[in-house]
Amino acid sequence: MSHSYEPQEINRREDKSIRARMLISCPDRAGIVAAVSQFLYEQGANIVQSDQYTMDPEGGMFFMRIEFDLQELEQRLSSLQEDFTRVADRFSMRWSIFRAARRKRIAIFVSKEDHCLVELLWQWQAGDLDAEISMVISNHDDMRSLVESFGIPYHHVPVTAETKSEAEQKQRELTAGKIDLIVLARYMQIVSPKFIEQYHNRIINIHHSFLPAFVGGKPYQQAYNRGVKLIGATAHYVTEELDGGPIIEQDVQRVSHRDNVNELKRMGRHIERIVLARAVKWHVEDRLLVYQNKTVAFV
Amino acid sequence: MSHSYEPQEINRREDKSIRARMLISCPDRAGIVAAVSQFLYEQGANIVQSDQYTMDPEGGMFFMRIEFDLQELEQRLSSLQEDFTRVADRFSMRWSIFRAARRKRIAIFVSKEDHCLVELLWQWQAGDLDAEISMVISNHDDMRSLVESFGIPYHHVPVTAETKSEAEQKQRELTAGKIDLIVLARYMQIVSPKFIEQYHNRIINIHHSFLPAFVGGKPYQQAYNRGVKLIGATAHYVTEELDGGPIIEQDVQRVSHRDNVNELKRMGRHIERIVLARAVKWHVEDRLLVYQNKTVAFV
Amino acid sequence: MSHSYEPQEINRREDKSIRARMLISCPDRAGIVAAVSQFLYEQGANIVQSDQYTMDPEGGMFFMRIEFDLQELEQRLSSLQEDFTRVADRFSMRWSIFRAARRKRIAIFVSKEDHCLVELLWQWQAGDLDAEISMVISNHDDMRSLVESFGIPYHHVPVTAETKSEAEQKQRELTAGKIDLIVLARYMQIVSPKFIEQYHNRIINIHHSFLPAFVGGKPYQQAYNRGVKLIGATAHYVTEELDGGPIIEQDVQRVSHRDNVNELKRMGRHIERIVLARAVKWHVEDRLLVYQNKTVAFV
Amino acid sequence: MSHSYEPQEINRREDKSIRARMLISCPDRAGIVAAVSQFLYEQGANIVQSDQYTMDPEGGMFFMRIEFDLQELEQRLSSLQEDFTRVADRFSMRWSIFRAARRKRIAIFVSKEDHCLVELLWQWQAGDLDAEISMVISNHDDMRSLVESFGIPYHHVPVTAETKSEAEQKQRELTAGKIDLIVLARYMQIVSPKFIEQYHNRIINIHHSFLPAFVGGKPYQQAYNRGVKLIGATAHYVTEELDGGPIIEQDVQRVSHRDNVNELKRMGRHIERIVLARAVKWHVEDRLLVYQNKTVAFV
Repeated sequence: MSHSYEPQEINRREDKSIRARMLISCPDRAGIVAAVSQFLYEQGANIVQSDQYTMDPEGGMFFMRIEFDLQELEQRLSSLQEDFTRVADRFSMRWSIFRAARRKRIAIFVSKEDHCLVELLWQWQAGDLDAEISMVISNHDDMRSLVESFGIPYHHVPVTAETKSEAEQKQRELTAGKIDLIVLARYMQIVSPKFIEQYHNRIINIHHSFLPAFVGGKPYQQAYNRGVKLIGATAHYVTEELDGGPIIEQDVQRVSHRDNVNELKRMGRHIERIVLARAVKWHVEDRLLVYQNKTVAFV
Repeated sequence: MSHSYEPQEINRREDKSIRARMLISCPDRAGIVAAVSQFLYEQGANIVQSDQYTMDPEGGMFFMRIEFDLQELEQRLSSLQEDFTRVADRFSMRWSIFRAARRKRIAIFVSKEDHCLVELLWQWQAGDLDAEISMVISNHDDMRSLVESFGIPYHHVPVTAETKSEAEQKQRELTAGKIDLIVLARYMQIVSPKFIEQYHNRIINIHHSFLPAFVGGKPYQQAYNRGVKLIGATAHYVTEELDGGPIIEQDVQRVSHRDNVNELKRMGRHIERIVLARAVKWHVEDRLLVYQNKTVAFV
Repeated sequence: MSHSYEPQEINRREDKSIRARMLISCPDRAGIVAAVSQFLYEQGANIVQSDQYTMDPEGGMFFMRIEFDLQELEQRLSSLQEDFTRVADRFSMRWSIFRAARRKRIAIFVSKEDHCLVELLWQWQAGDLDAEISMVISNHDDMRSLVESFGIPYHHVPVTAETKSEAEQKQRELTAGKIDLIVLARYMQIVSPKFIEQYHNRIINIHHSFLPAFVGGKPYQQAYNRGVKLIGATAHYVTEELDGGPIIEQDVQRVSHRDNVNELKRMGRHIERIVLARAVKWHVEDRLLVYQNKTVAFV
Repeated sequence: MSHSYEPQEINRREDKSIRARMLISCPDRAGIVAAVSQFLYEQGANIVQSDQYTMDPEGGMFFMRIEFDLQELEQRLSSLQEDFTRVADRFSMRWSIFRAARRKRIAIFVSKEDHCLVELLWQWQAGDLDAEISMVISNHDDMRSLVESFGIPYHHVPVTAETKSEAEQKQRELTAGKIDLIVLARYMQIVSPKFIEQYHNRIINIHHSFLPAFVGGKPYQQAYNRGVKLIGATAHYVTEELDGGPIIEQDVQRVSHRDNVNELKRMGRHIERIVLARAVKWHVEDRLLVYQNKTVAFV
């Protein structure tokens, strides 16, 4: 038996099979937008959304995200990419083109707290998260039946001080070649530098505070002790520096002197799940660029 | 005498004298972005910001706002506009180009409540409102000294049932050829259809409710009677339909059963002034397009 | 094995078995707080929380909520209530005392949209909703497996124009004597005046707009058509007037011209579920009083 | 002639001359509310608002704020206080009674940034800040005409490394016996421990970050460098630890990658002035208690 958890079709009239998204970053100078849009026009593409950001008109970096529609996209993508190198080289661009129809494959890592996982599953099932949740990996077995009831494979990979490197080896095998994004949905284990390097800017963590306040352990206890009037949560890409990676999204919730640590945790769960879900959504929709430990978020 | 109320220089490294903003709306089809950006590139302009919105990729409307830098903009503007007509005609565009250095001239209309006026003056004086406040017109004389202390001309134009049309005639004379935007900062008189037509989409009103809730008079009393848990304010362009014009901005504030009508008014003043100031700021920065009684706000 | 869906123990050091909540409303006059607190003191109770609200010190209504701890509460409750009548009569009070340990029994009514239901189930399972979800009643059979996986009885009661009164009769039988609160979690059928009367101020509905804006059907379409910049949701007690009952809670979410009706619906789901969950939580914690079609919410 | 800056009468039907506010903190135990309310009842007072908070029903601290009306309050206050010592001693209370009609006298300290000062003046002039602004002290002379136009004395007390102690001596003389609350409205000088001790929990500072993030100098630059998605402001009582005192109020504002440091400063000004104004309002309305470096805010 199982609840019918097939993700509902996202209701848009756009034909996703012909939709592509392009992310570009390069040193700013005149002519970039003209060159890119002229190139797309000549290819027969129709630009349906375009965002750009110039850090500084004089010699700063330029960032761009373009959504366009192109007939027979799948077949034409590689020649399109090949052709685009001419434009890209001219402006020293770093760039990528993603097909909207090629949904990103996510592995969610989780420990004992289930709220962030549940939110992602729920949004995915509701069709709000346009991705594939390929697997859930946990150092505990508690959420197996929940996850499996969504038809998603669940891997229990216990982690102890002794088995740490074997556990990561196991995680690496499970995800190898199958995963585009790792989501740490309140996963309480440290991820190794090697793993972080492999998934550079493709591991999203949710930290249960308004960073950079309350880095590290027990942020709600820290918040309670300091007597703050708002608590927060922060989704960020994971880097080697603990809670120091590029911030993707943050939000806060008003609290009062009445709220003890348990109440802060309870209220915080709501912000954590919303903030993490937004960050994951933006990532899988190719809305995020990273530059100098900050995100450019075209949302 | 008088507080040094010269607006401070807005601190940006951009050279405003070469900055222009272009607003475009036309039926969507492939090639618009390419044509516009190619045109600007050939003119030697550098696009520093670009926003676009397509209502519907198949046959919908297309809206665009571009900020670009062009050397010797002031001298070259009319030839630029002339040249652009070729592009515009090809895509049936409605379009405008504004020089950032040509600040919009505002007339603020006010009655007895001063909070919205004070906020605009304060933001203007702080350099946050990049416009010229050319005059304040009021049906009362109460705020003369306040306004004049900012070095701004104050015109007292009394309005009674009998003198209504003469008053408007007087207002028309005062503003004729001198004003780009009328701001009704809690001006409690009805503006005539003729006046509205003359300043089509150039009169901004602040309504002290979350429209379309509580249209018309005494919205805080209405809100109190209904027992809402949030109160709001709405800035909109004025059309002939009372409180029915295109909404520019709205915001709300949490209230509780403890807040009586006077308290709602007090709390509401804070939202009103913030919402109105945002709307005016967006207008003078050419961030607003109107289509079918709605605004497209590139903010 | 199944997901361990027993609601987790709410983590507080308070002993819920001795905790009571008292709700009082009466005409204001001097001595009420003294009389009530003196009474509780003499009974040996310790007041742990107290909120009050006076509409108007001169002749207005007075509302009070007191949480107190009393040893052997369950055994002593009826004598306590009996004794309190002396105090209550003196001040013409309407009043109730609830044991915190006696969790309110909820029937959730739902149609085809599951997000509000899922949120309530999730919060309940997480221990954040201190109530008993006794049953789910739906005019469709779609959510049976979801609901039953939480160990909650699911009743499919189809409703057609012809079977309307039978359906309600069936609902009445299912709930008779077993239910303290009805939650309409996007239940798309009209509830009869008779039913409303039976559950006076004990039926909570979620309306997917910021009331009183967009009463009635298709509020997101209405919101889109009007071009609002914020969308909202409203939880209210159901009265005979459609979407006209006492408002319990409201919240809003910023939207932009980019958001079409489907996007508004998607974003709205998040507000709806949060607003409804808050309202239900407040009701089951005896934080709501109703007076003249408004709520006094001690939250 | 000058703008009519007499604070408007706060529009409430309550008679402020008979209104008092009582703040109490003591170890929690049964009978406190009964004793206090019985005492007030016997004195003939009518409780119009009451808030309380128990840190922990078993052995924690108890905090209470009561607003009551008592005829001939001014004449009867000292005997009331004398009589209340019996109750207070019984429960080892720390307590105060304030007459609402006795408005607190504020000295605002300011440097070169005027936005927080202007907001306080504006709210005071609008009747929203029920206090007396007795003087403004600044280490610059820039805002003299602004302040004096409100009819408020302005004292220019320059501060240099050499004149620091003389300057503080001067400030002390200006405020001696005349001031109930010091507000540091972006006053960029360090206040000495001696001064802090003298105005224990009576100096409110606004820090332009979401504390404890970005303690110390240039918080907007720090926020920009870290790439946060929300900026904030914090009003707190000043203690010897820099930016480490009890937090009274905080709020945040969403920002994006587009906002450079100057833009953050501009947006931050709006939060700073709102947060500071709220904190000052709560203080002068006797809504704040301090315990263990945190505030209990009955708001």
